[in-house]
This record gives sequence, C-alpha cells and structure tokens, in this order.
Amino acid sequence: MEDISDVKIVPCEKSRFIKPLRMLFKQNGREKIWDAMEVHDSVVILIFNKTRNVFVFVKQFRPAVYLSRSKITEENGSRHIKASENPPNLGVTYELCAGIVDKDIGNQRIAQEEVMEECGYEVPLENIEPVTSYRSGVGATGALQNLYYAEVTDKMRVGTGGGVAEEGELIDVVEIPLCDGKSFITDQNYSKPVAMMYALMWFFDVKAKHYTNSNKL
Amino acid sequence: MEDISDVKIVPCEKSRFIKPLRMLFKQNGREKIWDAMEVHDSVVILIFNKTRNVFVFVKQFRPAVYLSRSKITEENGSRHIKASENPPNLGVTYELCAGIVDKDIGNQRIAQEEVMEECGYEVPLENIEPVTSYRSGVGATGALQNLYYAEVTDKMRVGTGGGVAEEGELIDVVEIPLCDGKSFITDQNYSKPVAMMYALMWFFDVKAKHYTNSNKL
Repeated sequence: MEDISDVKIVPCEKSRFIKPLRMLFKQNGREKIWDAMEVHDSVVILIFNKTRNVFVFVKQFRPAVYLSRSKITEENGSRHIKASENPPNLGVTYELCAGIVDKDIGNQRIAQEEVMEECGYEVPLENIEPVTSYRSGVGATGALQNLYYAEVTDKMRVGTGGGVAEEGELIDVVEIPLCDGKSFITDQNYSKPVAMMYALMWFFDVKAKHYTNSNKL
Repeated sequence: MEDISDVKIVPCEKSRFIKPLRMLFKQNGREKIWDAMEVHDSVVILIFNKTRNVFVFVKQFRPAVYLSRSKITEENGSRHIKASENPPNLGVTYELCAGIVDKDIGNQRIAQEEVMEECGYEVPLENIEPVTSYRSGVGATGALQNLYYAEVTDKMRVGTGGGVAEEGELIDVVEIPLCDGKSFITDQNYSKPVAMMYALMWFFDVKAKHYTNSNKL
C-alpha cells in the first residue's frame, strides 16, 4: 500500500469527481455568491467483532491527505512531491468502513455491502444498526453521512475484504483491540477523520458495557 | 438569517475557493489518478460559559447544506431552487466557532481571534486549551482540523460576535444549556457537523465533572 512513487500535481480541468457549481442567492436582501460541490451522501459503519473483542477498521493511502501533509516541489514549471522527502505513510489514514449512497437500495443495505467489500464480513441486515446522522461538510460540501454500528463474529468473515480491485481500491483491514480503543481515539500516530472518533466515543458511552471485558476499561 | 430568495445554480468555471488539482502517482507499481482540492487547515473551538453553564455555538445558513437538502428545479436550461418549496432553514446548521489557518500567528491565537469575531468573547490565550487534531476530510480534501476548548465567563463577553460583516458573514450566537448538551448531540432537529458531536462527547467524558450541575446529567 505504501509503495508510492512518481507523484505529480497537474491541472484538473474536467474532473469526474470534483464538480464545482456556483450558488447565487439573496440573504436578507443582500446578494451573495457561494461556490460548492455536489457530493453523494454516505454511510460509515463502526464494526465490532465480538468473537475476539476487536474493532474492525480500514487503512488506506489517501492522496488528499498526503498532499496536505507534504511539501510540493516546483521545478521547471511542474509540481511534484518527492516521496523520498515525504514518506508515503503521511497519507495513510485509519477510517471506518464506508461508502457513498449512489444507488437506491436503502442506506442499510449499502452499509451491508460495504462491510462485505471492504472488510469481508457477511452480516445479516438486522445487525446493521442505525446510530445517527450528521453533515459530512458545511463549507464546500454539505452532504449527509449516516453512521451505523455492526456487531460481527469470526463466523461471518467469508472474504478478505480489501475493496473492489477493479475500481483500484487498495484497502487493508486492521483490528484494534477493545482495550486499546479509547487511547486510539486521540492517538496522533493514527491519522483519522473525526467521524471515527465520534463513533468510538459513542461505543464507549452506549455499547462497551455489553461486552465481556468492558469492566477493564 | 433565514430570509433567502432568488436561488440560482450556475456553472462555476474559475472559483477563488474551489481549486481542484489532479495528483498522478504510482501505487505498488500501478498508475493512479486522484482529483483533490487544496484547502486550509482549520481550528474549531468548543466554548463553555461557566457563569451560566451554557455551551456557546454558532448558527448560520450554509449554502452547500441547503443545496444538498433541496430539490433543484430545471427550467428553460437554467437551474434554481424554489425557496417556497425548500424552506431556507434546511440550510441552517449549528456549529462550533471555527476559522481557517490562513496566517502565521499560531493556531491558538487564530482560535482566540475567532472566539472574539464570531462569539464576542475576549478570552486570554491560556484559556484556549488544545484538545486534539484530526483530518477534516479524507476524500477530496485532507486538511487538519485542530480542536480547542475555551472556558469563558460573562465578563469576557465584550462584543456581540456575528462574524465579519465586510466578509458577508452572518452568524448567530446560540447558547445550549449544559443539561441539554447530551441530547443535543444526536437531536436530528439540529443539523450539525460531526466534529461538534465529538467535541461534546469529549466534554462529557473529561470536563463535565468540573462544573457545578454535572451531577444532574
């Protein structure tokens, strides 16, 4: 995953993924302009394997995070990032299993599919428990993210996960023991989005007491 | 704030705010392309007024959220949103006081300035307590967001806040009582980003016990 090389930054004229639009409106009679992007709503799933009391997360190289943490070199009018000076693990993040809402089959079923694709667990739909929803962005994007909780067992693990190879996904499944979950939340050695931190706080508030070694927390 | 009208969606050719770029790289020898945007790192501040045991938040109309929750009407080749059918409060969010890191004065000082500009509290720098950091995005953006905690008193309130009028900011300061904080986190009547939900979970985990009526929680 972390074998990254030949990193170039080039102009992005027509993107399939980033489609800016401009919203013109009046607020309290005053004309305003706001540039935004249309993005899909999404689902994220906090997975807990109760056979071995571990959280199941995904780990991947995120170009936008690498970009944000790297020094961009400008040479002869072109821009690039030297992997020798900016170690690729700068772009590696730990995240909840996740997916976008790009089909009309219900968010719970999308969550179920992502748990299978990314983490290899075949989970009954009734094990995909809705937790809450919130805005995944409020500035350039404003889509809804729906958080689910999935309790799984080793018996449900029927595949290796790792994402859809044809889509170029390269995802590692990682396990964090229950007893390390709380310190993981704020451990700055693991780059992560805040949704994962919220999900874990929710778990320790609501769910932890149901699992056998929760009294050690 | 919620007097919104004449909402049009137009193409966004050259944006000052959304600047896509394309990153070309090799991962495990395979060529990959990722479209991303460069965005500033940011600060967010959970403000607690201990004189009256209330959280101090900001409330604003967010065009991208409104867009995400509205039906876009296409007529004669132009796109618009009918405010009569899509009430503007769809775009109103509750958020932590926040700002972008666009100057080199230290994040704590930027946080201090935002607390003054948006909420009207003049807070000593030593009251701006670092909590943690995380990625504000992992897909199209990957910037760092730094969370702070600021304990304030009524005596520190020297202005009305509301943002910088010249920049078109129109922000309401809202107070949520400590005793309502926990139910506020998952109350779907208040549209909010997950960073605010994490910050409140952190408060109830770490800080609440220090305040007088925490035993009622």
